[in-house]
Amino acid sequence: MQEDNNLNPMLVLISRKTNRIYYYMINSDSDYHCKEGVIKKEDLLNTDTNTVYSNLSREFLKFKASESDYAQKIKRGPQIITSKDLGYIIARTRVNKNSKIVEAGGGSGGATMFFASIVNSVHTYEIVEDHFNIIKYNLNKHNINNVNLTLGDLSEHIENESDIDLLFLDMPEPKLILEKNLNSIKNGKFIVCYLPSISQIINLYSHILSRDDLYLEEVSEVSIRNWKITNKISRPEHKKEIDHTAFLVFIRKV
Amino acid sequence: MQEDNNLNPMLVLISRKTNRIYYYMINSDSDYHCKEGVIKKEDLLNTDTNTVYSNLSREFLKFKASESDYAQKIKRGPQIITSKDLGYIIARTRVNKNSKIVEAGGGSGGATMFFASIVNSVHTYEIVEDHFNIIKYNLNKHNINNVNLTLGDLSEHIENESDIDLLFLDMPEPKLILEKNLNSIKNGKFIVCYLPSISQIINLYSHILSRDDLYLEEVSEVSIRNWKITNKISRPEHKKEIDHTAFLVFIRKV
Amino acid sequence: MQEDNNLNPMLVLISRKTNRIYYYMINSDSDYHCKEGVIKKEDLLNTDTNTVYSNLSREFLKFKASESDYAQKIKRGPQIITSKDLGYIIARTRVNKNSKIVEAGGGSGGATMFFASIVNSVHTYEIVEDHFNIIKYNLNKHNINNVNLTLGDLSEHIENESDIDLLFLDMPEPKLILEKNLNSIKNGKFIVCYLPSISQIINLYSHILSRDDLYLEEVSEVSIRNWKITNKISRPEHKKEIDHTAFLVFIRKV
Amino acid sequence: MQEDNNLNPMLVLISRKTNRIYYYMINSDSDYHCKEGVIKKEDLLNTDTNTVYSNLSREFLKFKASESDYAQKIKRGPQIITSKDLGYIIARTRVNKNSKIVEAGGGSGGATMFFASIVNSVHTYEIVEDHFNIIKYNLNKHNINNVNLTLGDLSEHIENESDIDLLFLDMPEPKLILEKNLNSIKNGKFIVCYLPSISQIINLYSHILSRDDLYLEEVSEVSIRNWKITNKISRPEHKKEIDHTAFLVFIRKV
Repeated sequence: MQEDNNLNPMLVLISRKTNRIYYYMINSDSDYHCKEGVIKKEDLLNTDTNTVYSNLSREFLKFKASESDYAQKIKRGPQIITSKDLGYIIARTRVNKNSKIVEAGGGSGGATMFFASIVNSVHTYEIVEDHFNIIKYNLNKHNINNVNLTLGDLSEHIENESDIDLLFLDMPEPKLILEKNLNSIKNGKFIVCYLPSISQIINLYSHILSRDDLYLEEVSEVSIRNWKITNKISRPEHKKEIDHTAFLVFIRKV
Repeated sequence: MQEDNNLNPMLVLISRKTNRIYYYMINSDSDYHCKEGVIKKEDLLNTDTNTVYSNLSREFLKFKASESDYAQKIKRGPQIITSKDLGYIIARTRVNKNSKIVEAGGGSGGATMFFASIVNSVHTYEIVEDHFNIIKYNLNKHNINNVNLTLGDLSEHIENESDIDLLFLDMPEPKLILEKNLNSIKNGKFIVCYLPSISQIINLYSHILSRDDLYLEEVSEVSIRNWKITNKISRPEHKKEIDHTAFLVFIRKV
Repeated sequence: MQEDNNLNPMLVLISRKTNRIYYYMINSDSDYHCKEGVIKKEDLLNTDTNTVYSNLSREFLKFKASESDYAQKIKRGPQIITSKDLGYIIARTRVNKNSKIVEAGGGSGGATMFFASIVNSVHTYEIVEDHFNIIKYNLNKHNINNVNLTLGDLSEHIENESDIDLLFLDMPEPKLILEKNLNSIKNGKFIVCYLPSISQIINLYSHILSRDDLYLEEVSEVSIRNWKITNKISRPEHKKEIDHTAFLVFIRKV
Repeated sequence: MQEDNNLNPMLVLISRKTNRIYYYMINSDSDYHCKEGVIKKEDLLNTDTNTVYSNLSREFLKFKASESDYAQKIKRGPQIITSKDLGYIIARTRVNKNSKIVEAGGGSGGATMFFASIVNSVHTYEIVEDHFNIIKYNLNKHNINNVNLTLGDLSEHIENESDIDLLFLDMPEPKLILEKNLNSIKNGKFIVCYLPSISQIINLYSHILSRDDLYLEEVSEVSIRNWKITNKISRPEHKKEIDHTAFLVFIRKV
């Protein structure tokens, strides 16, 4: 997601009638076919207009895909970490262009790519080979070159890391890592655990309390609600795409 | 917030008994005095330990302040934009290290400094001279050098800007800017309005609908709930620091 | 819902393995057939045990249906008013055994039957003949005799009513009724409007403000979140049955 | 709360300018004095008008207090059970005019009086003598005569009760009662526990699972959000009076 020009460029089409979203790959050889008709390639590539019409006279807004659209496209499965959670992790810990993130449990790499677009470097550990390959594929496809991807168990490597600004753990038992020596995390910086269940946090609590180099600073739950606004209507959407995802546990390295 | 070494360095002290937070400026000449007793300067500066004691035998965890602590310290007044909202704006729009943000209505500069820590450059317009001076002070104090700060009305300058990846409007009447020619915003990129009231969004709606170069993609409300977790207790905190702040309106430049 | 003995009596069966719920009509002639096997009628009617087994060795808890189960069974369509809203209306207005409720827009009668089970009498106006017939059917089926059901438009009858403790309006344009003389509502008692959209409430606002016999006391939104609790898990349910339903507007008759 | 005439009658005054609420006892001998001026007794008792003015020319709406106002007045301390929770208990369990409720942990009697206004009879056990006296005082003051109030420990009496439609437990350790023989609760009816902490529910879980006459049907959290609606503004209130209160645990007697 570094530079959209590096990516296989895409157009976003939004039907004025149905509000449905369609994606058109610019290097495609053909016209675009969808349920709302056929849109001609030459109309799609015409940069003089941002409105196109299908052969069924449907009107579409047309614009270049941005990073937010590419982020939609890598979504696979329900285990993706949502924007509400990713954003809060960044804003709460204040990692930034100079930061180094180490993470374990990358899933399909959505969080990895988001972090990589913001911070200086990311080191991702993934223990499942299939997941490792998906992440690798996604990183290559999006030309991301500030991620170091390791197939392996972070609990065996955490003590060899250094100068970590944020340790992000998306795994059911973060205790396996928290029990290690954590001096590779900078003093005053954060460990963030992503945990769906309160029971998991309770299990973590006594271990954190027993250590004089860890401090449980915050347990938070971020929610989002989308609203429908039209000329006559203003109400929360009936269908919430995102409901409960996980609790975010912010632990400070002391 | 670029580099904590550039800042006047600070220690964070957390009382084990009360969980209260204290800040100690490292260049201070004196011991630290607080309600929970006096802590000796030499103990505070001793890097061999992360636990210190006051003369009243209270125990404190001690660690270096991170960017998240400095962000707390610039808070002034209720109009600061909270981490839940700032984070979601970043994660939803996917602005990143290469991006250029233009914003109006910077308040005390909290959002400005957060954006500056993440993106390539920020251009901030502030119409109120007092606010302008506060933002200027905060930017200088935190050695932030990728923000261009202009005392003036963005609606008069928006057409002279170019290549904007995110236009962020924290003002009661964003329509004054949305009514202008918006070709300085890149095709497919976002305008985000921060609006406390549904009525304000309704007012915006017909204008957006009337334009073929704007698309109302999402209206969202982000909430956060903090949890209290101890050995025996696991429940939402009784006092929510942050309640309703504002709705976030994501408009796409077409 | 007055007396469960008056109703066609029902048993509730809950599969220990799947937690699925099944209903068995006691006057049925046959065994119970479901996806988890066949349960013998004689086992179902045996009052010495509260556990029964299917021929597939699945275990079921068995108990008599209560009013809450019958309330589930009359649900039709999404427009039913949910328990979270019905309950808050009762508790906020404090209508009770001595109260008289007048309502318009009864839908399928779910709110009507709930109110009737609590207050002294209910007068329901329904303008759509099909809905009127459904409500009538449901009232008869549940032997409810303290509801006066009128096919007609409340706005034409409100001035002939008297001594109303609660006027409940589940209709898109309650203004048609609020514009009338409202002296049939007791001084100090409530009108409650059930409105899905903020825009509807805004439309109501100026009319209420213009009248010296109405006072907008509260606009509320009630939410519910179900939790999954097991030996290892404690988290909000991923699927929320009930999301946004409507805002509740509490207006006082002055 | 049976009949407002039985109560010491009260007027509610609402300042048009500040929206502040004042209460005037009708049997008072004097004019009403408040921060917004003095209102004459004769104006207050004049039933020809619902608008009165103070000597400072402030305008007030005036109406008779209803049961909802008297319910406000008995509030003491934060431990009162809120309307959102009381309402949902009624609507979820569908107790009604014919029901018998047994409850323990009455606090100041707010829940008791609400239940009594709706169901046939309530038997309240209170173990703390001071609380017992407060409840007794409140019941007398409001002329409530369908509550049987016992100073004592429900765990010692539950087996002597009979035909319970709802057992309501507002106590930190409901297990002390749930461990008893619960055949005094009707088959298919509910036990509702009011528990602030998830940890308390986890503790309850294994006991419920071990019994073949109890079924954990639902764990819910009810939230309420008030909205500010005026001509120009429509947004959630900044200050939420009611935040997290407790989780409601609905257990079925099998």
